[in-house]
Amino acid sequence: MSSTEYQVDRRELHFVVNETLQAGKLCEFPDFAEFDEEMFTMIINEASTFAEQVLAPLNVNGDRQGCRIENGAVVTPDGFTDAWKQLGEGGWLSMSLPPEFGGQGIPEVIAVIGKETQLAANQGFTIGASLTTGAANLIYTFGSDVQKNEFCQNMFSGKWAGTMCLTEPHAGSAVGDVITSATRQEEGHYLIKGTKQFITNGDHDMADNIVHLLLARTRNSQQGTKGISLFIVPKKRPDGVQNDIKLVSIEHKMGINGSPTCLLSFGDNDDCHGYLLEAENMGMEQMFKLMNEARLLVGLQGLAGASAAVQNAWAYANERTQGPSSIHPGKKASIIEFPDVRRMLMHMKAVTEGLRALMYTTAWYIDMANHGPEENREKYQDLLDLHIPICKAFGTDQGFDVARTGIQVLGGVGFTKNFPLEQNIRDQKIASIYEGTNGIQALDLVGRKFTSKKGQLLKVLEKELCWFDNRSLEGELNGWVAEWNNYRTLMIESIHCMSKIGETKGKDGYVLYAANMLDLMGDVLCCFYLLKQAETAQKKWKGMITQTVSQEELLADNQEAKFYWNKLRTVEYYVWSVLPRALSNAKTIKNANLSPLNACL
Amino acid sequence: MSSTEYQVDRRELHFVVNETLQAGKLCEFPDFAEFDEEMFTMIINEASTFAEQVLAPLNVNGDRQGCRIENGAVVTPDGFTDAWKQLGEGGWLSMSLPPEFGGQGIPEVIAVIGKETQLAANQGFTIGASLTTGAANLIYTFGSDVQKNEFCQNMFSGKWAGTMCLTEPHAGSAVGDVITSATRQEEGHYLIKGTKQFITNGDHDMADNIVHLLLARTRNSQQGTKGISLFIVPKKRPDGVQNDIKLVSIEHKMGINGSPTCLLSFGDNDDCHGYLLEAENMGMEQMFKLMNEARLLVGLQGLAGASAAVQNAWAYANERTQGPSSIHPGKKASIIEFPDVRRMLMHMKAVTEGLRALMYTTAWYIDMANHGPEENREKYQDLLDLHIPICKAFGTDQGFDVARTGIQVLGGVGFTKNFPLEQNIRDQKIASIYEGTNGIQALDLVGRKFTSKKGQLLKVLEKELCWFDNRSLEGELNGWVAEWNNYRTLMIESIHCMSKIGETKGKDGYVLYAANMLDLMGDVLCCFYLLKQAETAQKKWKGMITQTVSQEELLADNQEAKFYWNKLRTVEYYVWSVLPRALSNAKTIKNANLSPLNACL
Repeated sequence: MSSTEYQVDRRELHFVVNETLQAGKLCEFPDFAEFDEEMFTMIINEASTFAEQVLAPLNVNGDRQGCRIENGAVVTPDGFTDAWKQLGEGGWLSMSLPPEFGGQGIPEVIAVIGKETQLAANQGFTIGASLTTGAANLIYTFGSDVQKNEFCQNMFSGKWAGTMCLTEPHAGSAVGDVITSATRQEEGHYLIKGTKQFITNGDHDMADNIVHLLLARTRNSQQGTKGISLFIVPKKRPDGVQNDIKLVSIEHKMGINGSPTCLLSFGDNDDCHGYLLEAENMGMEQMFKLMNEARLLVGLQGLAGASAAVQNAWAYANERTQGPSSIHPGKKASIIEFPDVRRMLMHMKAVTEGLRALMYTTAWYIDMANHGPEENREKYQDLLDLHIPICKAFGTDQGFDVARTGIQVLGGVGFTKNFPLEQNIRDQKIASIYEGTNGIQALDLVGRKFTSKKGQLLKVLEKELCWFDNRSLEGELNGWVAEWNNYRTLMIESIHCMSKIGETKGKDGYVLYAANMLDLMGDVLCCFYLLKQAETAQKKWKGMITQTVSQEELLADNQEAKFYWNKLRTVEYYVWSVLPRALSNAKTIKNANLSPLNACL
Repeated sequence: MSSTEYQVDRRELHFVVNETLQAGKLCEFPDFAEFDEEMFTMIINEASTFAEQVLAPLNVNGDRQGCRIENGAVVTPDGFTDAWKQLGEGGWLSMSLPPEFGGQGIPEVIAVIGKETQLAANQGFTIGASLTTGAANLIYTFGSDVQKNEFCQNMFSGKWAGTMCLTEPHAGSAVGDVITSATRQEEGHYLIKGTKQFITNGDHDMADNIVHLLLARTRNSQQGTKGISLFIVPKKRPDGVQNDIKLVSIEHKMGINGSPTCLLSFGDNDDCHGYLLEAENMGMEQMFKLMNEARLLVGLQGLAGASAAVQNAWAYANERTQGPSSIHPGKKASIIEFPDVRRMLMHMKAVTEGLRALMYTTAWYIDMANHGPEENREKYQDLLDLHIPICKAFGTDQGFDVARTGIQVLGGVGFTKNFPLEQNIRDQKIASIYEGTNGIQALDLVGRKFTSKKGQLLKVLEKELCWFDNRSLEGELNGWVAEWNNYRTLMIESIHCMSKIGETKGKDGYVLYAANMLDLMGDVLCCFYLLKQAETAQKKWKGMITQTVSQEELLADNQEAKFYWNKLRTVEYYVWSVLPRALSNAKTIKNANLSPLNACL
C-alpha cells in the first residue's frame, strides 16, 4: 500500500470473487465453458497490472492538465491517447461483451474487477472509456446486421469510441423533455438537429471516430418519454464523410478533468446523419435494458474511489508519526496507534468492503440472470433490478464519504495536492449526479422496483435474506447474524411502513423519505453479503489455528491468517458500528414528517 | 436569494439575535452600556452590506487566480488588498476586541454576525483575516504595555496583519513535538530558529507588516507541551529592520486558494528576533485561553458555508424547470415542487439553522461568561467550554454535508464551475482539519470537558437542558419537546454508557466512539436551541392569525408570517427527520465494539 499511489488489493479481490462468490462455478454454464478459476485469477492479476502501470501514472496529470479545445476539437491530457490504445488492445473495453465481434465474453463478476481497478487508478480516463462499452453494447443488442458489422468490431476494440447523448440544456433528469429532432429521409437515414449537453467524452483525440448514441424525437412523435428514439450518429459517417456535428464547448468542472464533458451541436448545417436503432419510439426502452450495467458502473466509481482512499489513508497512518508511542516506549507513535484514527480506517475498510460485497454479488446476479439455469433467471433478474439503484446511489454516496474520511486521516496534507485524496473526492462528486441522480435512484427503488410485478421483487429479496435462517453457524458469527436479523426485520417493517404512508399521505408522502429507505437497504444488504464473507473467512481462520500455533504467532507472520482475521474484524465492525445507521433511517421513515411538503418554499 | 451570489438572510439573523437570544438585554451590563438593540440591527445591516458588496464579488477570482510568489513574497488575488483596507477601516477585524486600542467592544453574539457573513461571502479571504484578530487578541491579553503599544493599534486596524505559527513539518496535532528554538539574548529578545508549516496568511501583500505569534522551545525547557513558549515575531521589527524570516513555499490546495498557506523558515541567518509573551513555558496555556474564540470561528466557517449553500440551492430549485408541473397544469415544474428536492432543501435549512442556533448561543455564552453578572459567570464558562468542541467539529462536518446536498440539488451544473457550490465545498473541507482536527475535538469533549471539575460541566448542561421541563407549551410544540426529551435522555444515558466503557475497557475503549458522542450531542443541542426559537416563532405566528385572516391568506402575501411559519416547519423537520441520527450514534456507543483496536493494522 502507498499513501500516494494506487495498488490493487489482489488478495481481497481473489477472496471476494473466487473464495466467496465461487465464480469458478459459473464455468459450468455453456456460455462460460471456456473459462476456469485459474483464468479468473490471471485476469485479476492482469487487470491489476494494467490499472497500476498504465492508468494510475496518468491520474494526477489528467487532473492538472485537463482537456482543452484546439482547432475545434478536444485535446486530452498527455499519455491518454496511448493508454486508450492499450485499453482497446488489451480487450478491456469489451470484457463482458460477446465474442462475436471481438468481445471477451467473460462473466460480469470478473469484468467488474477490470472496471473497479481502472476506475480506482484513474476515474477521469475510465469513466470516459466506459461510455464506449455501453454504446457498443447498445448497437450489438438492438442494431441491424449492417449496423453491427459497421460499428461493433471497431468499438469493441477501441479503434472507435462511443458516447451517450441524452441530456439537453433544458432536459436533464426529465429525459422526456428532449426536443432534438430526427427527420426521416427517403434514403433511410434521419437528419438530426439539436443541442446535447454534458456529453462525457463527446469529443476527443483518442480514437479514429466517435459514435454517438443519441436520443431524439421523430416527426409527430408522442410527447414525453414514449416518443423518443435512439440513433447512431457517428462523427465520421461509414462512407468517411465528416458528419455535421460541432463541438461548442467543454465544461470546467470540480473533477474528472481528464474526461471532456462536451456541449455538442448536431445539424447546424442541416446535414447531420443519424441511423435509427431498431425502430422509432423505442429509445427509452432500449436505454432501460442496458441501464443496469451503466448504473452498476457508476456505483463502482464510488467503490473504486473508496478503495483507493482506504489504502492511501492506511499507508499514511502507518508512515506518519505524531507524539510518543504508548506501544513502543521511547519511540514516536504512528498515528495508526490512535483509537480515533483506527476507528476511521476501520470505518473506511468496512464500508468499502461492504460496497464491494454488494456490487460484486450484483454483478454475479447479472451473470446468473443472463447465463445461469433457465429456471432461476427470473429470480436473479428480480434481485438484480432491486439491487441496481442501491449499488448506484448508496455506492456513490458512501464512496464519497470514505474519501472524505480519508482526507481526515491525513489531516492538513490531505487538503493539499501533494496527496491523491483531494482529487479522489473531487472526481467522485459527479457520481451521485450522473446516470440518474441518487434522488432518482431512490424513486426508482420505491416507485418502480417495489411495486413492479405486484411486489414480487421484494418477495424474492426477502426469501434470499433467509439465507442464514436455518444455517448452523459457529462462534461469534452467531451473534453477528442475530444482530443483523434485527435490522433485516426493521427493513421489512420500514417497507410496510412506507406502503401505509402512501395509503394515508399520497404519492408525495410515499416518496419523501425514499432516500432513507434506499440507505437503510444499502446497509442491511452490504452487511448481509459481508456476513457471507465472514462465514468463509471464519472457516479458513479456524483451519489455521492449531494446538501448536497461537493466534498471536499466526498474526505476527502469516499474511493469510492476518487477511482472514482482519476480514472478520471488519465484518464485526460493520455489524456493531455501521449498521446502527439503519435505526436512524427507519425512525425517520416511521416518523413520516411532512414538513418539507407543508413549508412555504 | 440567488443561485450564484451570496445574499445575507438579514431577517433570520435579526430573529436569532434580537428576537430569540434577546441580545438587547446584554446592554444592561456595564461593558455593553453604550449599545442598544437598534445599534445591533444596524450592525446586521452593515455587516451584510460589507459581505455582499465588498467580499462576495472577490470570491470566485480568489479561487481561480489564487496566490502566487513573486520575488520571494506572496501576491494575493486582485482586489484583496483593497478589501483588506476596507475590512480594517470598517473595524471588522476588531469587532469584539476592547476599545482601548481601537476595538469596537461589541458583544460576541453580534460580532459573530460579521464573521458568519464574511465567511459566507468569501472563505479564503476571511479565514486569513481572522488570524489577525486572534494574534492581536493574544498580544492584548498577555503582552506587556510596551508590546501592546507597539502592536495592538496597528493590528486592530488591519494596518498590520497577524498569524499563528504552531505547526511544524513533523509536529501537527502533536503540538508538544515542536522543536523551533528560541535563545534568549542579553538585550532581552530571543533568537528564533526553525521551520513552520501550514501558516495561514504567513506572507502576503495586504498589510504593511505581518506579526507572527510563534510557538517555540527555550533552552533546557521541559519536553512536550509544558516547555513551549509564545513569541511575537514580526516580519518587520519595531525599529523598521526586516526580520530574518524566509518564505519557502506556499501549498497547492483543494480550496481556500485566496488564502496563502505558507512554509516559513525563521532564522536562516541566525538573526530572527522574537519577543517573549508574558513568560517562558506559558505558550500552551496562553493558546488555550483564546482557543474558544478561534474554534468557534472555524465552526462558523461550517455554518457560513452551509448558509451560502442553502440559499444558492434554494434559488436554483425555484429557477430550474424539469418535466410537467402537477401544481400548475400545462406549465413546467420548478424542481422545488419535487418531494425529494424539498426534502433536501429542508434538510439543508434545518441543519443550517440548527448550527446557527447552537453557535450564536455559544457566542452569547462568551458574553455572559465575560461580561454578565459575576455569580453566573462560571456557569456560562462551563457551558461554553462544553459547547466549543461541538461547534467546531459538528459545525464543520455538518456544514460540509449541507454544501454536498446543495450540489445534489443543482445536479450536473452543481459539479461545474459556473455555480459557486463546488468552490464552497472545496473551501470548507479544511475546516474539519485545522484548529484541532475534529477527532481531537471529540477527544477534548469526552477526555477533557466531561471529566473537568469532577464532571461539573455536564451537570451544568443537564440543568440547562431542563429549560422546557415545567414550561407551559402550546399546540404542536408540546409534541416536539416531548420527542426531543427522549433524545435528551438518550444523550445522558450515552454519557453514562461511555463512563462504563472507560471502566471496563480502558482509555482506548473510552475514546473510540468519542466522535459519535460529539455528533449525538450536536444534534440534541441544535434541536434544543431550535425549539427555543420555535417557542418565539409560535407566539409571533399565533399573533398574526386572526378570525378574519386565514393561514392561506397570511402565507400568500405576508413575508413575516411566511418567515415564522417556515421557521416552525424547519424545527418540526429537525425533530422528526434529523434528530433520529442520534439513535445511530447512541447505539454505536452502546455496542462499544472494539474491533478497530483488535484488528491487526
